[in-house]
Amino acid sequence: MKLLILNGPNLGLLGTREPEIYGSETLAGMMARAVAFAASRNAEAEWRQSDIEGELVAWIGGARGAFDGIVINPAAYTHTSVALRDALSGCGVPAVEVHLSNVHRREPFRHTSLTAAACVGQVMGFGADGYRLAIEGLLNWLTNNRGK
Amino acid sequence: MKLLILNGPNLGLLGTREPEIYGSETLAGMMARAVAFAASRNAEAEWRQSDIEGELVAWIGGARGAFDGIVINPAAYTHTSVALRDALSGCGVPAVEVHLSNVHRREPFRHTSLTAAACVGQVMGFGADGYRLAIEGLLNWLTNNRGK
Amino acid sequence: MKLLILNGPNLGLLGTREPEIYGSETLAGMMARAVAFAASRNAEAEWRQSDIEGELVAWIGGARGAFDGIVINPAAYTHTSVALRDALSGCGVPAVEVHLSNVHRREPFRHTSLTAAACVGQVMGFGADGYRLAIEGLLNWLTNNRGK
Amino acid sequence: MKLLILNGPNLGLLGTREPEIYGSETLAGMMARAVAFAASRNAEAEWRQSDIEGELVAWIGGARGAFDGIVINPAAYTHTSVALRDALSGCGVPAVEVHLSNVHRREPFRHTSLTAAACVGQVMGFGADGYRLAIEGLLNWLTNNRGK
Amino acid sequence: MKLLILNGPNLGLLGTREPEIYGSETLAGMMARAVAFAASRNAEAEWRQSDIEGELVAWIGGARGAFDGIVINPAAYTHTSVALRDALSGCGVPAVEVHLSNVHRREPFRHTSLTAAACVGQVMGFGADGYRLAIEGLLNWLTNNRGK
Amino acid sequence: MKLLILNGPNLGLLGTREPEIYGSETLAGMMARAVAFAASRNAEAEWRQSDIEGELVAWIGGARGAFDGIVINPAAYTHTSVALRDALSGCGVPAVEVHLSNVHRREPFRHTSLTAAACVGQVMGFGADGYRLAIEGLLNWLTNNRGK
Amino acid sequence: MKLLILNGPNLGLLGTREPEIYGSETLAGMMARAVAFAASRNAEAEWRQSDIEGELVAWIGGARGAFDGIVINPAAYTHTSVALRDALSGCGVPAVEVHLSNVHRREPFRHTSLTAAACVGQVMGFGADGYRLAIEGLLNWLTNNRGK
Amino acid sequence: MKLLILNGPNLGLLGTREPEIYGSETLAGMMARAVAFAASRNAEAEWRQSDIEGELVAWIGGARGAFDGIVINPAAYTHTSVALRDALSGCGVPAVEVHLSNVHRREPFRHTSLTAAACVGQVMGFGADGYRLAIEGLLNWLTNNRGK
Amino acid sequence: MKLLILNGPNLGLLGTREPEIYGSETLAGMMARAVAFAASRNAEAEWRQSDIEGELVAWIGGARGAFDGIVINPAAYTHTSVALRDALSGCGVPAVEVHLSNVHRREPFRHTSLTAAACVGQVMGFGADGYRLAIEGLLNWLTNNRGK
Amino acid sequence: MKLLILNGPNLGLLGTREPEIYGSETLAGMMARAVAFAASRNAEAEWRQSDIEGELVAWIGGARGAFDGIVINPAAYTHTSVALRDALSGCGVPAVEVHLSNVHRREPFRHTSLTAAACVGQVMGFGADGYRLAIEGLLNWLTNNRGK
Amino acid sequence: MKLLILNGPNLGLLGTREPEIYGSETLAGMMARAVAFAASRNAEAEWRQSDIEGELVAWIGGARGAFDGIVINPAAYTHTSVALRDALSGCGVPAVEVHLSNVHRREPFRHTSLTAAACVGQVMGFGADGYRLAIEGLLNWLTNNRGK
Amino acid sequence: MKLLILNGPNLGLLGTREPEIYGSETLAGMMARAVAFAASRNAEAEWRQSDIEGELVAWIGGARGAFDGIVINPAAYTHTSVALRDALSGCGVPAVEVHLSNVHRREPFRHTSLTAAACVGQVMGFGADGYRLAIEGLLNWLTNNRGK
Repeated sequence: MKLLILNGPNLGLLGTREPEIYGSETLAGMMARAVAFAASRNAEAEWRQSDIEGELVAWIGGARGAFDGIVINPAAYTHTSVALRDALSGCGVPAVEVHLSNVHRREPFRHTSLTAAACVGQVMGFGADGYRLAIEGLLNWLTNNRGK
Repeated sequence: MKLLILNGPNLGLLGTREPEIYGSETLAGMMARAVAFAASRNAEAEWRQSDIEGELVAWIGGARGAFDGIVINPAAYTHTSVALRDALSGCGVPAVEVHLSNVHRREPFRHTSLTAAACVGQVMGFGADGYRLAIEGLLNWLTNNRGK
Repeated sequence: MKLLILNGPNLGLLGTREPEIYGSETLAGMMARAVAFAASRNAEAEWRQSDIEGELVAWIGGARGAFDGIVINPAAYTHTSVALRDALSGCGVPAVEVHLSNVHRREPFRHTSLTAAACVGQVMGFGADGYRLAIEGLLNWLTNNRGK
Repeated sequence: MKLLILNGPNLGLLGTREPEIYGSETLAGMMARAVAFAASRNAEAEWRQSDIEGELVAWIGGARGAFDGIVINPAAYTHTSVALRDALSGCGVPAVEVHLSNVHRREPFRHTSLTAAACVGQVMGFGADGYRLAIEGLLNWLTNNRGK
Repeated sequence: MKLLILNGPNLGLLGTREPEIYGSETLAGMMARAVAFAASRNAEAEWRQSDIEGELVAWIGGARGAFDGIVINPAAYTHTSVALRDALSGCGVPAVEVHLSNVHRREPFRHTSLTAAACVGQVMGFGADGYRLAIEGLLNWLTNNRGK
Repeated sequence: MKLLILNGPNLGLLGTREPEIYGSETLAGMMARAVAFAASRNAEAEWRQSDIEGELVAWIGGARGAFDGIVINPAAYTHTSVALRDALSGCGVPAVEVHLSNVHRREPFRHTSLTAAACVGQVMGFGADGYRLAIEGLLNWLTNNRGK
Repeated sequence: MKLLILNGPNLGLLGTREPEIYGSETLAGMMARAVAFAASRNAEAEWRQSDIEGELVAWIGGARGAFDGIVINPAAYTHTSVALRDALSGCGVPAVEVHLSNVHRREPFRHTSLTAAACVGQVMGFGADGYRLAIEGLLNWLTNNRGK
Repeated sequence: MKLLILNGPNLGLLGTREPEIYGSETLAGMMARAVAFAASRNAEAEWRQSDIEGELVAWIGGARGAFDGIVINPAAYTHTSVALRDALSGCGVPAVEVHLSNVHRREPFRHTSLTAAACVGQVMGFGADGYRLAIEGLLNWLTNNRGK
Repeated sequence: MKLLILNGPNLGLLGTREPEIYGSETLAGMMARAVAFAASRNAEAEWRQSDIEGELVAWIGGARGAFDGIVINPAAYTHTSVALRDALSGCGVPAVEVHLSNVHRREPFRHTSLTAAACVGQVMGFGADGYRLAIEGLLNWLTNNRGK
Repeated sequence: MKLLILNGPNLGLLGTREPEIYGSETLAGMMARAVAFAASRNAEAEWRQSDIEGELVAWIGGARGAFDGIVINPAAYTHTSVALRDALSGCGVPAVEVHLSNVHRREPFRHTSLTAAACVGQVMGFGADGYRLAIEGLLNWLTNNRGK
Repeated sequence: MKLLILNGPNLGLLGTREPEIYGSETLAGMMARAVAFAASRNAEAEWRQSDIEGELVAWIGGARGAFDGIVINPAAYTHTSVALRDALSGCGVPAVEVHLSNVHRREPFRHTSLTAAACVGQVMGFGADGYRLAIEGLLNWLTNNRGK
Repeated sequence: MKLLILNGPNLGLLGTREPEIYGSETLAGMMARAVAFAASRNAEAEWRQSDIEGELVAWIGGARGAFDGIVINPAAYTHTSVALRDALSGCGVPAVEVHLSNVHRREPFRHTSLTAAACVGQVMGFGADGYRLAIEGLLNWLTNNRGK
């Protein structure tokens, strides 16, 4: 199993930006733990980050055939990007949406997700632990649903 | 660690109701697996189900002092119950919201959650596996945040 | 043919409550006439009333296998209950929604129905006569559509 | 008792148009059955159909003194015609609204009715059988309410 | 000066329909007085009534070159007809909108006018007297603005 | 008959302010003509202008017993003042609302009137001529409706 | 005079739940003081609490003939329950709505009340003292309005 | 304790304006009773009335240091005045909002309050008795909360 | 191939009405060119125009079996007619919607189309040339999709 | 160059009211600095403050011919006053809107401005320094745009 | 004549992504046909594709002087990009918007276009054939409107 | 003091694009003047422009530690970019938002700003002069607020 972990805008600053909301761990640290967890489940995970919506779109488009599943934290693009939604629903690779914080506790414009409907499911509110839960859930889902 | 797993209206019919959305496993079967998983993590879990909003409210109110955390699938009450939101935010016991299906793929009135803002986080779209992920996430969260 | 006739909140007070809108006949009187009418059509009808949303949900959930059709007057829950909608759409027993008054002549929040989409059809504005029309319509519908 | 049965736009094509929603019976067939049913109740029924909103308005305006009641399926004009609403509320002849399908299961713009508030009641979802139920309900209503 | 006075749906029934709102005078009576008033101002007025939106549209379209001004009571089409708005704004003949009742005292959907923006002005709430005021206002307006 | 003509905010600047919308005549000029017209109809008219919402409210409150009717151009307060609406509906003196321009041709927030529902009727779009039409309509209305 | 004091969901936890909003006194303590106050006004008060919407509905339905007035704190059901509104408007017993906190200072969905329109009046923001004010206001109201 | 009782637009006409809603007592009469009641509680009350929003704003601004509490019936400005809200939240003197009628039984635009969020609490629906309840509630509140 | 070209309200006035938006060519001129273009593509085209919604509905209903495709410019009915939408979706003949102007550059109420969802596609903004493009696109579409 | 600096409701209390939002400087202090700054730019500035909307309207109306530009902080009236908007757009004197705080960080009803569209520009969030920036910007704007 | 054909996000995947909506032809194939068609009309066409909104913005900005017209399929950015709208309306090069599918048959958020108002016209629903129709329409438009 | 001046999409075309709104000066010209002005205030300013949302996000993210303040004209992204809002609120560097035109005079979708709430303040409507005012305001703000 090969997984692609995508991170959206501003997440490259994790550890420095608003730590009372996002914690003090860096993205690289989080990703190292996520990749290691995937390995412990016999899956190979690769991670990327971009602030550019279109670059995320392109990575998703290129995932077909190269990856079995996607874990994506679209960050701010969750609420505004029809392009990411189209990419996710069109690429044919199952995806899971992750949010570090519980977006329902923040501003109203963060309570809606354009991308979630194009994903298998969603995990939010567990901080970096959410990546691990998403990987675990996605691997199980792939085991149960691939080939159907 | 003691966990309370609560299930809302219509979930008692799982396995018979709309299996193309919810799968064919019964609630008792799902709960047995969830309790066993909690046990494997050294946590004691107890589960309940009610179709009555007020009974769920009362169980949450009674959880203070008796349980360390709550996993709740409020089902249809997710979208209509201010009472459950008040119960969750008032009881002082951390909770995680679970949905079997990805509600963002269903009718628009299911895209909003009144209860999520009163929870630590949310897991949706993984079927019965979601209870396991929620327990895992909640236990980690309790380990990291209790006493803060 | 076995039919279940369900009545929602406040309907137990029929005959005393706002008679200018609902008339002066009691619910028991109305139900006796409805049951007799069903009998005249060779159908066995059983009626119940509850003020509790979750009790109605449970009765609907228990109707599978026990009844061939449901006639339901959800009263105030028509406009607020996703749980009843889920129960009706999930139980596998065809239902017809009845309202004593014409809800379109009342406050705007009564012009929408969450439950109607989970029913075969709707009859409103005919007072107690609406139960008879609903039974008649439902029995015909069952004759034409069962087995399809 | 004399009844006027009115049918709105596109209903003249019944039996050919979208039979998966409306069935394969023609309007003439449905109306013949409805007229016969009225006769069996000692009522004389006359039916008409028009695609033109203003022609329906004129027929309703002319019903005063000529008919005791109106059964109307306004079809698409249900959702857009203030003129039909004004005609129905101004003509002084009690009316019942009929829809072949359950409009609550279709597009959101079909969930509202401008005309229903000008009618005694509404019957929907029973196909052609709805005309019969509406006639029955209207005749009973006239028996109970005329002269009041 | 030649004026065209147009009356929309249901107005042909004036004097019989809801007299508590519209009074007991017939449309023919009202129009005779309006025509006589115009004559007293040296203007020739012709009146018409139709329940059919498209017939009103056609009459407005044909007014160019034949009439100097239009007085129109669009009745229910005020609130729903983009076609009448287009006809009025496209015909090149100045128009004044009249309503017998004060529509702001009625249902909210009557508080908006699609047609008013295509008229010189509006007179409402004066019953049949409104036609006279509209004729007077329009003749003055034509005197002051023609040729500009 | 005694009439009170009230003018709201900014109208004191008529003749200087945005003449392409309101024309170049001053308010004093307009009012002199309106008072003269009333006199020609055997009515005594008094006019006032204020930029202060509460002063207009007080004048309306004081009109009971002193005036038989009110002609009011509430200008900008038309769209924002519940206080003027309450004053007009509470004072017991019939009023007519006037607007110089056709507000339906301007910004959307000018398409709604809070005050109109508290008036007998409305005249708009005829410039200063509207005061004359409103006086005429109001005097006729008073003749027909006083004592009812 | 006999009064029924009803308390809605989560209020049984008063004194433990979110004391920064609701204070630290228990419901039993508050109710004892309210009953004593009623007694000092020569009224007999009985109090109840339920987390179940339908149980509150049933208690209100049973109040006719047994109580002269109702003081109700519907808590979360204030904002979602058409059933409570119907019960209050249908039972024929005057009611007063109480809220411990000023709901206008909390989330927007708490700014609307479905139940208030079915009550004589409303008291909010005074904590437990609000029950006393409501009793006092209701007793005066009953003295002035009974028999009208 | 010194209290300032403020009354907004149109309230000076109490006793003459729409008595079916507001009763027949004059404001001066009501205020005399309110002042006397305050005196019976050892508080000195002064009352004022203005139709002018800005005058009310100025009085509130001047209350700091001169009064311990404010009882305000903002009347129509309740629903439109951000200026009064700012004055109340900025003056540092606790206030209670009073309405004679139950605004939830009137037009929808009266169901919202801009000023309530800047007050300690609200009392409505008890007619003139509401001032007395508000004074009582405010004095208790001041006793319990001053100095905190 | 036989095509039916339908034109809605006010289009009969093309060439005279608002030429700055619609150009100075008459409808007859435009249609002659459109018919000639169809002939150059070996298709027979027939055109009609009506100001009456119901007449357009009837023509569409009669197109089944008589025409292979429809090109329709619903003009103002685009934005208000559910009846045309039903006619187009029910007649079984593929249609293309044409607008002379780019409706997105006009008033907001022209930005939505009720009829477009019942068509194969839409062409707008090219003036009379749009009919030619629509015919070309429709003929290609018919070639590729008929029989599927 | 002569400038008029206008300040709206509650600003007279600056320095005492909510200093955490508005700072502790008094309005007189701020205005003295603003006037001095204007003088340093060879402009004569006069300042005024009123809590009364209509008084601000009148001052703006009187500015024509007396002042070259206006700097206005409409405070709460920013969000509710069509009258101020009309005054500003009608007076013919260019204006700049100032806010001490960044209104986008406060309640949603403060995010919209009715007055801004009638001004040259807007400056917000810089506290008292905003007056200086507005004066500077306005003087430059006048230099560049006067006579155009 | 030189034309620039721009394609937005995800269109590079055409032929692989959701073929039931978009067909199985690749973008390169479609573009080759479009370029050839332009050549047959004596126009030189160049095509580009980007997933990045800002790259599309830059290409449009650079089109001035280099191209005579633009054909653009903004894909998902149609519904979210003010930047593309600004680029199109600011570049001075006429553009036509193309969509492969009929967006009115898809989710409601696809029924609105931010970019269409900045284009000459729109073509949708014809699959790849839409590019050809757009080129044809644009070339005719340029012939008729250039130099005006 | 070091300042970063950021310019969003389409601003690179200033001087050529819609000069009636934005003027004829180029961005490079404007920026040279802004940098010179900053230098005259002893601040070092660096400017950049990008059409790509994500590039702007990245530049803001990189500003921490490198710059003391940001002046940003987000152009079209003002109204659509949650990502820029997150970048600005997360980077820890105070920012001021600038718009060349007064956005309140343009289309309604330009009246809202997602980014303003993440800035210290806003300056709009002064053309290129706005950058100078923003720099001046920001430097003063930094002097007064740094270290707090």
